[in-house]
Amino acid sequence: MAVGESRFPVMPTIEGLRLGSAMAGIKKPDRRDLVVIEVPEGARVAGTFTRNAFCAAPVIVAREHLAACTARAAAPRYLVINTGNANAGTGEAGLRDAHATCAELARLAGVAEESVLPFSTGVIGEPLPMERLLGGLPAAIAALDDGAEAWRLAGEGILTTDTRPKGASVTVELGEQSVTINGIAKGSGMIQPNMATMLAYVATDADIEQPLLDSLLGETVERSFNCITVDGDTSTNDACLLIATGRGARVVDEEQVAVFRNGLQRVMTELAQAIVRDAEGATKFVTLQVSEATSREEALAVAFTVAHSPLVKTAFYASDANWGRILAAVGRAPVAKFDVGRVTIDLGNVRLVENGGRAPGYTEEAGSEVMACEEIRVRIGLGRGGESATVWTSDLSHDYVSINADYRS
Amino acid sequence: MAVGESRFPVMPTIEGLRLGSAMAGIKKPDRRDLVVIEVPEGARVAGTFTRNAFCAAPVIVAREHLAACTARAAAPRYLVINTGNANAGTGEAGLRDAHATCAELARLAGVAEESVLPFSTGVIGEPLPMERLLGGLPAAIAALDDGAEAWRLAGEGILTTDTRPKGASVTVELGEQSVTINGIAKGSGMIQPNMATMLAYVATDADIEQPLLDSLLGETVERSFNCITVDGDTSTNDACLLIATGRGARVVDEEQVAVFRNGLQRVMTELAQAIVRDAEGATKFVTLQVSEATSREEALAVAFTVAHSPLVKTAFYASDANWGRILAAVGRAPVAKFDVGRVTIDLGNVRLVENGGRAPGYTEEAGSEVMACEEIRVRIGLGRGGESATVWTSDLSHDYVSINADYRS
Repeated sequence: MAVGESRFPVMPTIEGLRLGSAMAGIKKPDRRDLVVIEVPEGARVAGTFTRNAFCAAPVIVAREHLAACTARAAAPRYLVINTGNANAGTGEAGLRDAHATCAELARLAGVAEESVLPFSTGVIGEPLPMERLLGGLPAAIAALDDGAEAWRLAGEGILTTDTRPKGASVTVELGEQSVTINGIAKGSGMIQPNMATMLAYVATDADIEQPLLDSLLGETVERSFNCITVDGDTSTNDACLLIATGRGARVVDEEQVAVFRNGLQRVMTELAQAIVRDAEGATKFVTLQVSEATSREEALAVAFTVAHSPLVKTAFYASDANWGRILAAVGRAPVAKFDVGRVTIDLGNVRLVENGGRAPGYTEEAGSEVMACEEIRVRIGLGRGGESATVWTSDLSHDYVSINADYRS
Repeated sequence: MAVGESRFPVMPTIEGLRLGSAMAGIKKPDRRDLVVIEVPEGARVAGTFTRNAFCAAPVIVAREHLAACTARAAAPRYLVINTGNANAGTGEAGLRDAHATCAELARLAGVAEESVLPFSTGVIGEPLPMERLLGGLPAAIAALDDGAEAWRLAGEGILTTDTRPKGASVTVELGEQSVTINGIAKGSGMIQPNMATMLAYVATDADIEQPLLDSLLGETVERSFNCITVDGDTSTNDACLLIATGRGARVVDEEQVAVFRNGLQRVMTELAQAIVRDAEGATKFVTLQVSEATSREEALAVAFTVAHSPLVKTAFYASDANWGRILAAVGRAPVAKFDVGRVTIDLGNVRLVENGGRAPGYTEEAGSEVMACEEIRVRIGLGRGGESATVWTSDLSHDYVSINADYRS
């Protein structure tokens, strides 16, 4: 199940950036489960990783290798991603396997081991099936290509419980030149801010200095992947990588940065929303906008309290305009000296709550009409200040329970 | 559905304390939905209430009336509890209704209005059906009695989605004299620390000074009702009242206080656990013990992070020893400078995790055997200090979704 139409864009080529994938039989036969991304020399790469204290072995190695490359002003040359096994909770053996994966790809490609970043997603706590994984590398390398089909197959090759591949592409004009930004992502469960069971690879042909690339990644992730939640669970394996090949237009001055940031944010937000639309068991896509807060952190705290409430989520599933549950969730958010008499709650364009209770003009019919939609917007005004935040989430359905009670993810 | 056997004890009489209930038709006909508790003169009463900023009208009025009584060294004489309607999110009209309920009972009983404390539980945001509620008061008053049957009917009369009444009774010996502690509670959904959709009334014949009574209530609630969670949602209406009639043994010196506190804690914990056992859709009763923390707060934070994880809860439902999900939840808990290499996780007597990964001796069979039980104990050692905490929770089942998608609670 998923909310709305699937649409994997026809990705324009980003010169020098090639993707190859293969079926290595890591968990199941006949499943595309191994992806190699080749980054051209001279590119720059920024990365952000899970904040879960139990981070997976590939996260530790990818962070180290990325830091080592960046320290000598070089970029990683290869990313290798397997699905079907997260190589998490695997201790020392897991670290050895992550290193061995990098070493083998480095040997086949003729680069240094630290030029390869490993990524894994799938079941936690089982050893990586190294023979099958390493055995699949030659096929993935042989498939390396910069065309739209290679992007689409790479989008497929990183999925776990996702029901469809997720891609986004934007072209922005920088003066005379245009710059392309392509991205693919995966994620469906164990999704919450601070990077979830979520992998995203975004590439552009723009030419961007490393410090700017790092800050652009941080800023745009903060308002996209870090603003989604399905179940409040942060995974051990999350990563988002931003690759700038540097072969296209330079992004330097303030105006260029603003235009590029805007395009990058669109790609990041579209990918993040695609994850929520494909959330495990999702039947609704919910946008929670909290405004009139004293800080963005406060607005986020209220939005996530509502987004994580199982009672609110089951009400969305039931298309039940149960505003009492939303009100109760807002009321328990960690906000100091909260004057609930100033709070307003709107469901779509229907005012639900004001002056601490049900809005006078509210009718059950009007609320139910909004709730029946697949896409629902809830606006919460706190009446305290001028800051705001938006969070996207899904509902809690029978299918969510089925998927997570049946699937060993 | 509920976990384990139901057992409503035969409550001993607490002299002077009487309970009466009636079917007032507040939401449904033929349902016991109105309870009056009569407190004898000379008693002392302590109360603790929801910390939800949107607290319901009866909570506001009960708090005010209790404070007014306590200020003049008197105790409330009547508690009136209705189910079927929470009188929450009802603004000024809700406050008027709560006052009117107190006024009518005060008139019928011949006491001052502030001697009556009102409590409501049920659907949020609908006006109290005052005619039916007030119309039911004479029958509830006429039924006032101090016998075991009155306790049992009162236990029934406060339920909402609960599948069974919850009662606990303990008798402790204070030197030559024995003291009785009886309690009833309700709660099944919208359950989380800091008082949930939970009402509890505990009475004793002990003679206890007000400051001691207040602190005993706070201490024992902290380690019982504030250590349970079903869905992480704090309700707008929670309350726990502790009544000491003062007709029995005095509780003054250190040893007496220790004995009494111990008995009171047993009643509170038994009631709190009964709520989790009867949690909406529950098929498992899970005890989470976190030890070796630097503070109790840290231990609680880890325990609640695990207890609130939908992925962990669905794994319990599936009887799936998915230790990767427990490990991932521990890893995202808000703990500073967390060395996950020192963490141990045990499921029953089976070691799941040590040294940052799966314990060497662990087998899937051993884990599955523990997971198949209705009652499951998870012990998490943080390897950081000497503090600990215990939290009780339930699983997340299909029935949880059904109950909350179908029932307008």
